[in-house]
Amino acid sequence: MSKVRCGITVSLDGYAAGPNQSKEEPLGVGGERLHEWFVELEIFNRTHGTDYGGEVNASTPVVEESLANVGAKIMGRNMFGGGPGPWSADPWPGWWGEDPPFHVPVFVLTHHAREPLTLSDTTFVFVTDGPESALEQARKAAGDKDVTIDGGANVIQQYLAAGLIDELELHVAPILLGGGERLLDNVGSGVELELIRAVNAPKVTHVKYRVVK
Amino acid sequence: MSKVRCGITVSLDGYAAGPNQSKEEPLGVGGERLHEWFVELEIFNRTHGTDYGGEVNASTPVVEESLANVGAKIMGRNMFGGGPGPWSADPWPGWWGEDPPFHVPVFVLTHHAREPLTLSDTTFVFVTDGPESALEQARKAAGDKDVTIDGGANVIQQYLAAGLIDELELHVAPILLGGGERLLDNVGSGVELELIRAVNAPKVTHVKYRVVK
Repeated sequence: MSKVRCGITVSLDGYAAGPNQSKEEPLGVGGERLHEWFVELEIFNRTHGTDYGGEVNASTPVVEESLANVGAKIMGRNMFGGGPGPWSADPWPGWWGEDPPFHVPVFVLTHHAREPLTLSDTTFVFVTDGPESALEQARKAAGDKDVTIDGGANVIQQYLAAGLIDELELHVAPILLGGGERLLDNVGSGVELELIRAVNAPKVTHVKYRVVK
Repeated sequence: MSKVRCGITVSLDGYAAGPNQSKEEPLGVGGERLHEWFVELEIFNRTHGTDYGGEVNASTPVVEESLANVGAKIMGRNMFGGGPGPWSADPWPGWWGEDPPFHVPVFVLTHHAREPLTLSDTTFVFVTDGPESALEQARKAAGDKDVTIDGGANVIQQYLAAGLIDELELHVAPILLGGGERLLDNVGSGVELELIRAVNAPKVTHVKYRVVK
């Protein structure tokens, strides 16, 4: 059956982004370090069109698994490329360039209505009537495949708190950011998880949970 | 060589204790759930004098490893059994009963001078001149064995921030507490860790790190 999945990298102290996020540092100060494990992988370069080679290690099958069977994605406006400020006045194409690495419909949660934007084989659909509507549209687009909730933290929090996520995978980077955007704030204590598996890999531990409702 | 080790259970959102800690609920509201994985183990009952049997599972060797080769322990006054209030006026013997489960010298960080207290084969030594002095005394007492920093969170934070911990093991319970005492606050971003191993077990993931200075 089609699942709603979320996978995101966090620091050991639970931050999905460091402090002082800006257009120059969208992941905040120090936030780039979160993804060192990922950008060093061959599969990262292959899937992001930067054909630099890279490592194959214990993270590779984890990433392959996360990319498989995805039919649609949901992200917040900042992750699409909003950044702070009224980007809707300027039809800014997002952070992701002319060939975004998604290849499936992406539903962007925003307060600013906008026509769908197609870049290569990715179409961004802007949803202004809330997370449940976005999920409904994404499920339809995904058919039998899964829907992923890609971020940022506040979007994931809303879906977790609403009990709408089936699987949560944390890629835990062994660093402390000491400040920034915490992934699991604002969710309350009503969510229970069940470990599916944990994988050791260079610069990261992958911990996958089933969300028990 | 003798190491300084710290092992502690945290929720997935990083809390070592829930909100509203009190004498009745020393781990705060919901905090008892952190240790479900532990109290169900045979090794817990065996080492805490409650001979109820219990489970042997993937957590058992992790706990055995954490108990092995320990020569002295350091804890804060609250973990010893201070609780809120001026317990030094009343020579309260701590939370741990007449036969504490430590069996090695325990150095208690406190602002209140007090004579050492021996209960069965555990001696509590009260240290009023700070964490570095406590560590020096604990190292002497431990000889070739390791010293463990047992908690609470604020004590661990002080030792981590000072770069005095060699190994940190988090027993991550798959629950959200949504509030309480966060383990890795107040440490800053200067600490880097290196994964030693991760272990899946019922109701917990054990993730052990080497602290890189």
